[in-house]
Amino acid sequence: MPEKILIIGGVALGPKAACRCKRLMPDAEVTLIDENTNISYGGCGMPYYVSGEVQTIDALRSTPYGTLRDPAFFASMKGVTVRNQTRALSIDRAGKTVLVRNLVSGEEEKLPYDKLVLATGAKARMPEVPGHDLANVLSLTRLEYAESIRKACETGKVTEAVIVGGGFIGLEAAVALADMWGVKVSIVEMMDQILPGALSATLGQMAASDCRAAGVDVFTAEKVVRLEGENGAVSKVVTDKRELPAQLVIFAAGFIPNGQLAKDAGLDVAPFGAIVVDETMRTSDPDIFAGGDCVSIRNVITGKPGYLPLGSMANRQGRVIGTNLAGGKASFPGYVGTWAVKLFKLSFCGTGLTVERARKEGYDAISVCVEQLDRAHFYPEKFMVGLELVVDKADGRVLGIQGSCLDGIALKARIDAVAAALQYGRPTVEDISNLEVAYAPPFAAAMDVVNTVANVTDNVLAGRFTPVTGVEFMELWEKRGENQIFFIDARPAKAGEAVQAEHPEWHSIPLEEIRSRMGEIPKDRPVAIICNTGLRAYDCVLALQNAGYADVCNSMGGMQSVGKLGLNP
Amino acid sequence: MPEKILIIGGVALGPKAACRCKRLMPDAEVTLIDENTNISYGGCGMPYYVSGEVQTIDALRSTPYGTLRDPAFFASMKGVTVRNQTRALSIDRAGKTVLVRNLVSGEEEKLPYDKLVLATGAKARMPEVPGHDLANVLSLTRLEYAESIRKACETGKVTEAVIVGGGFIGLEAAVALADMWGVKVSIVEMMDQILPGALSATLGQMAASDCRAAGVDVFTAEKVVRLEGENGAVSKVVTDKRELPAQLVIFAAGFIPNGQLAKDAGLDVAPFGAIVVDETMRTSDPDIFAGGDCVSIRNVITGKPGYLPLGSMANRQGRVIGTNLAGGKASFPGYVGTWAVKLFKLSFCGTGLTVERARKEGYDAISVCVEQLDRAHFYPEKFMVGLELVVDKADGRVLGIQGSCLDGIALKARIDAVAAALQYGRPTVEDISNLEVAYAPPFAAAMDVVNTVANVTDNVLAGRFTPVTGVEFMELWEKRGENQIFFIDARPAKAGEAVQAEHPEWHSIPLEEIRSRMGEIPKDRPVAIICNTGLRAYDCVLALQNAGYADVCNSMGGMQSVGKLGLNP
Repeated sequence: MPEKILIIGGVALGPKAACRCKRLMPDAEVTLIDENTNISYGGCGMPYYVSGEVQTIDALRSTPYGTLRDPAFFASMKGVTVRNQTRALSIDRAGKTVLVRNLVSGEEEKLPYDKLVLATGAKARMPEVPGHDLANVLSLTRLEYAESIRKACETGKVTEAVIVGGGFIGLEAAVALADMWGVKVSIVEMMDQILPGALSATLGQMAASDCRAAGVDVFTAEKVVRLEGENGAVSKVVTDKRELPAQLVIFAAGFIPNGQLAKDAGLDVAPFGAIVVDETMRTSDPDIFAGGDCVSIRNVITGKPGYLPLGSMANRQGRVIGTNLAGGKASFPGYVGTWAVKLFKLSFCGTGLTVERARKEGYDAISVCVEQLDRAHFYPEKFMVGLELVVDKADGRVLGIQGSCLDGIALKARIDAVAAALQYGRPTVEDISNLEVAYAPPFAAAMDVVNTVANVTDNVLAGRFTPVTGVEFMELWEKRGENQIFFIDARPAKAGEAVQAEHPEWHSIPLEEIRSRMGEIPKDRPVAIICNTGLRAYDCVLALQNAGYADVCNSMGGMQSVGKLGLNP
Repeated sequence: MPEKILIIGGVALGPKAACRCKRLMPDAEVTLIDENTNISYGGCGMPYYVSGEVQTIDALRSTPYGTLRDPAFFASMKGVTVRNQTRALSIDRAGKTVLVRNLVSGEEEKLPYDKLVLATGAKARMPEVPGHDLANVLSLTRLEYAESIRKACETGKVTEAVIVGGGFIGLEAAVALADMWGVKVSIVEMMDQILPGALSATLGQMAASDCRAAGVDVFTAEKVVRLEGENGAVSKVVTDKRELPAQLVIFAAGFIPNGQLAKDAGLDVAPFGAIVVDETMRTSDPDIFAGGDCVSIRNVITGKPGYLPLGSMANRQGRVIGTNLAGGKASFPGYVGTWAVKLFKLSFCGTGLTVERARKEGYDAISVCVEQLDRAHFYPEKFMVGLELVVDKADGRVLGIQGSCLDGIALKARIDAVAAALQYGRPTVEDISNLEVAYAPPFAAAMDVVNTVANVTDNVLAGRFTPVTGVEFMELWEKRGENQIFFIDARPAKAGEAVQAEHPEWHSIPLEEIRSRMGEIPKDRPVAIICNTGLRAYDCVLALQNAGYADVCNSMGGMQSVGKLGLNP
């Protein structure tokens, strides 16, 4: 008897597991059901379809070589039977059947299985605020919704849009609407920063600044109270702080894993709804696998169960499940949490824990920021990379790294290297100092920015200097009347003197002159130093400390960081 | 008494160690000697100075913030005494002094040390062929030589140049001369491929093809016999196979580590001349450190002593030495061998062992090649990445990875991730299948090319299909009269039919039609399948194998690979 494989869920993980299994075990009868019409599409591409960068919706449903991945394709090319518009109602684990309903005919049927895969995904968290059911209130979780959003934009009648939630999808949607359609976009985020959990407060402010520079309003620590409409369509978003006119509202306030079917069947499900699986992607029933956006997997850094709903995770897990369905022994040991997002000018990318998240997890964590060019400084084409390294003060263990850059790929290169070290080692600050990244002047600096951020962290951990963030530096500057701090700009004279001309308390003392002009620097006041990236300021700090100045701090990332934060003296 | 630190060698490692030590131990008396005038320059930038991309030689001698790193800079800004034009003649380890000679005055002097650092670098291997001392026969190992080369180009009298050696510097020089100055360049390489040791034969042929497409002649397995001149300047290079007119010859035939001073002092020196150091970068004398291009360090993959003369290695090692000079406990555990080079259109990058090198080291190694887009296939901006993964058949251990791409940074991102895994783990093929690289459509594919190459390798190791390289496929095609192979082009019909129109034995059978047209495919002949990247061909292989075809092979990397190799049907 051929083995019967039943897969519930037809996007990303489901098709990947189905095809992998069928390749390894050609005799298996593999059936995939999905309650929607469209299956096996690139869901992560929806913001780029909305923007128009992806021209047709079918581009998201096609293979790299342009063949539409519809049920007929799976039948003829992959030998996989697809039943779309078919909903799974319940699992009978003892009888090894799944009760399904054809959503067109209404007919119900029991489908038998030897092995079952739950690839049920997640649904958008749609806060039950009044008005959430008005027309043009959508999420970016289905192709049909992406089409509705783009069509709404194409009418030209959407001039204002509100995005509820400042996570990855919310921000990608904001870029699509503002950059490509010229819509006035407002982002309303409940937490006190955008990309909470993914970015530190500092980097979160840089991301918000990037949005604002592109004309997008970002409202954090703000809640949507209700939506109001005209003729059944949304016309206004009311928050706890303001009213925002909007002809389109996109909810991107996170996901809820679809774990109810598993829970009803008595499988282990985490409190937040995600299905619990082991390293082989098996649920608490060894004949039932699960993966993708509906499962909880181990965070390799904390060792605790976690959740990372990303298309890339689903694809890699899908292959593991496919192998194991066919009797193989593949495993998926967990995740470190690596991600990337392209905003307007800047891209952001990270892995592991942010400093705030690390502290919540109980680590005595600090983070250190640097800004440095991604290539040899003498090479003509180059970009400034900002990195923030998160470490445990106790033992110098690296817990995460996040950053920003105009060139997202250059940033990704640094993050992915640390991610690999986190995934397959337990790197310390010294390991990242020695990280052997590929070097030649068109690719990196001889001391690459990823090495530098570790070197600076080593200096901070050793107490060699006191760093402050760009935000903290500018707060000190704002309160200069109270704190009596003496401010030094260590950049070449031209840059510093331009600011000093406006603010006499901003003292331009270039690094080259720090020793000869030390008489100008009071010894009985704290000193705060800034330069372009932090490099010259560090040398100034050392010179002052050697000369007996006790209370000196250095702005990490310098004016580059301050600029990205949207601040200025 | 302040500690006396003496450093011999003023480029990359020497200054880095000096400054790091002085920062940590401000009271130390740090002296750096160098026999040349210029110190602390970006040697790796010389090809870009020759090309003109770096406009002035001082750009290579300056900090990122534009300050010239001359002896006065080190004295005033770093507190380090520099004595240039000063040669170290011998080390008296018992008396802890170094005998030096001022090359201007001729005076000799003994300099005392508590700790000594050997940063003596390496010299260009200059084969002692007749004529090697003619004018305009140079190497790219000193700023002065780079200036001479550029000046020679600026005269307009250099229309033909020969580069002896197809390693990194030779190729970078070729790009500089051909691309920027329009010089007719010939590369003469003794080995049977360029970038031997760094690239496999397959990738080496792609690199040569990239050079040839730009008008550069590449002669491999060829030796320079003598140089001939006119009026004291070179005019011709005579090899064992041909004569090449040349008004400029650059020797880039590798390096010889400068270990003689150490050897004469009785320190452990490897047979090939490099100084032996431990993980703290100490030589066999605990008061003498060494690092950079003059030392042998441990290859983390093979566990054997090795040699990797790169500016990035020198910088990272310099910091370790600086820390240890000041009483710290830093270590440098070795190298995996990560590098990058930008040629004409393509960049190449790699880490670890090539398949040929791995076999020489005794591994039962195979390599698997793929070509895949670096981003989501539906995302508008994207580049084809070629990767070759090298693994030990015995246990699936990953030994190295190399690749090529139009976008060098996208390639670097993949290589650096694997490099980090190699440096801090002992990754298997499955680990690279699960490598968690940052994903979003503008950054990667959901199943990234680095995951894909591991997935394909897994399939090869499991015997699921027989791969051939693009070179092997085209050899089979050339010999189609003898081998009776049935050739299938599985690309969409338009592409395959264009070739078939010219060559009727090239059968265009698109993947979509493979099942319905199986009657056209003979069962009693071997079958070789090619497509654009290898993906469609793999599905065809499975379909044919399921239908009972026993002898089917698949061209890895497909026509993308064949094209990069400079081949065509």
